[in-house]
Amino acid sequence: MHRGGYLESPTFAYETWGEPNEKRDNAILLFTGLSPSAHAASSVENSSAGWWEDMIGPGLPLDTNIHYVICINSLGSCFGSTGPASVNPENGELYRLSFPVLTLEDVARSGYELIRHLGLEELHTVMGASMGGMSALAFVVQHPEATNRFISISSATRALPLSIAVRSLQREMIRRDPKWMNGNYYLDDPPIIGQRLARKLGMISYRSAKEWANRFARERIVFEKAPGDQFAGDFSVESYLEAQAIKFSGQFDANCYLYLSRASDLFDLAEHGGSLKAGFSKLQLDKALVIGVETDFLFPLSQQEQLAVGLTEVVEDVSFRPLDCIKGHDSFLVDMDAFRPEICAFFESCC
Amino acid sequence: MHRGGYLESPTFAYETWGEPNEKRDNAILLFTGLSPSAHAASSVENSSAGWWEDMIGPGLPLDTNIHYVICINSLGSCFGSTGPASVNPENGELYRLSFPVLTLEDVARSGYELIRHLGLEELHTVMGASMGGMSALAFVVQHPEATNRFISISSATRALPLSIAVRSLQREMIRRDPKWMNGNYYLDDPPIIGQRLARKLGMISYRSAKEWANRFARERIVFEKAPGDQFAGDFSVESYLEAQAIKFSGQFDANCYLYLSRASDLFDLAEHGGSLKAGFSKLQLDKALVIGVETDFLFPLSQQEQLAVGLTEVVEDVSFRPLDCIKGHDSFLVDMDAFRPEICAFFESCC
Repeated sequence: MHRGGYLESPTFAYETWGEPNEKRDNAILLFTGLSPSAHAASSVENSSAGWWEDMIGPGLPLDTNIHYVICINSLGSCFGSTGPASVNPENGELYRLSFPVLTLEDVARSGYELIRHLGLEELHTVMGASMGGMSALAFVVQHPEATNRFISISSATRALPLSIAVRSLQREMIRRDPKWMNGNYYLDDPPIIGQRLARKLGMISYRSAKEWANRFARERIVFEKAPGDQFAGDFSVESYLEAQAIKFSGQFDANCYLYLSRASDLFDLAEHGGSLKAGFSKLQLDKALVIGVETDFLFPLSQQEQLAVGLTEVVEDVSFRPLDCIKGHDSFLVDMDAFRPEICAFFESCC
Repeated sequence: MHRGGYLESPTFAYETWGEPNEKRDNAILLFTGLSPSAHAASSVENSSAGWWEDMIGPGLPLDTNIHYVICINSLGSCFGSTGPASVNPENGELYRLSFPVLTLEDVARSGYELIRHLGLEELHTVMGASMGGMSALAFVVQHPEATNRFISISSATRALPLSIAVRSLQREMIRRDPKWMNGNYYLDDPPIIGQRLARKLGMISYRSAKEWANRFARERIVFEKAPGDQFAGDFSVESYLEAQAIKFSGQFDANCYLYLSRASDLFDLAEHGGSLKAGFSKLQLDKALVIGVETDFLFPLSQQEQLAVGLTEVVEDVSFRPLDCIKGHDSFLVDMDAFRPEICAFFESCC
């Protein structure tokens, strides 16, 4: 592991769409945000819709008629890859907090091990959104020989202190839940209240004031009041957050969340060489695309611009595409119409 | 009370600076944000610095050589005015959650009762910042005959859904603390963990990404690690938030916070007549000043502009002053140098 410790024979979960071509140079490696699994799109084996269903497939931006698309579940997550919720083969117990400090360099390394396992020497493109954009950046700085092309979506060279503060508070909400028990919670009785609070703060940081003003305004809902209810629930935006929180919790292991959230804070391109400039100078890219969104609170547009400017110093062909989506950081998940043309244009111009 | 219920002989705490003039028409009534007391500036009776110390005094923008300045502790607060932490004289017990639903109309009304008690018929100016700006707006719409001048600082005609979401989550953090006990917490063992979490989210919403990027960047602090510490504390921004949270908690009664926070959500100028336009048309102002800050997350500049535009329809002399302070919503407390000239200009042009 990048910051010390090791994992005994870890598992990396992944899914693929399309086929490798004869030269085995058409693969796209996709890193995910903090919470998704490797199930980015439906397939014969799993017909349920993926988290980027409208982006991956025949004729879509990640065109499976042309490309071999690989999505990996981040190391440290709980959807098949080894993480704090996995059994440590050395002692037969769950890792929990004995899991080593996780970094996005480790997540990137797992992607590198995967492509070697798949017999791929060079990738067509490495890409990712949100935390996945930083994992992809960690990949291209650690393994510069493995690809010449890079796409970053709503990501950054490193987290801003405000974003660290948001995530730190989310983690504290979970750690303050008495049911967390220093990470030793019962699997059938996890710190769900802390997780729901954290999810609500997540939603607040993932969307935008403008979207919610249009969507909810000051609309009310009518419901039966219990004691204490006078402090919550009247407004539609509150019931929306409640529904989102209920939907999310229970799906994601609390300790895995803590590790991945902290890994997002820790990543800093400047640690690769001592400065951002030195980090950028390690890259061996020919072509890069940076997409950001004006209303992004967590990874503000100024950070996308900083990334694009840094890349321009060392990469011949850099496109920076600021989008005026109103759905904030989540736009890449919920406003794909705005992103598809940009990603299509990138791959079309590779021919 | 505006939404039903009543208070038996409530107390309104206030402080004053300067003296009424002969015509008794030089008084400024100042409403506060959610958490401050009426101690806006030091005085002979209380020499400790107030929360707006550099704004009130001889030769300062609220010039006590000229004006009689009155600051009132909001009804529902816990610094002298009657609120959920007060004893209900009807049964000798603390109100707690039996306190009626609080609105900013009630806060405004308490200001009106106070000026009548002080023998003032007409105020020179009514003003407030943040929640206090909405209380001041409630005052001028409810009691249009009581003043011709109004100043709103970093406030709005009504809260945005994003701001409601932030406050709703803060309240939930407190209500989810097992020590809250449906509002019946022990006074010597209040829901301090929930209050600290709420304060941290408060700080995140009160400041700006830009300020913290300049101030903290990715600076680390060194400290001894306990189990679970790997998820918090490395970054300076995290220890800053922790220090802020510790400083705040214990000073403010948890139930009072819940009531005032909800009152901030509930206020809507449009409820005075059925629309914003109808609300504005009730005003009898000659002169108004609206000040806002570009980096304000909680009361975005677009809201200040909306307020200024609405006022312009019905008030002859309206100034809108957007400031490029980087300290977000809190700028009026921590960047007074930017605000002083604007407030001075308002009062100078009254002569």
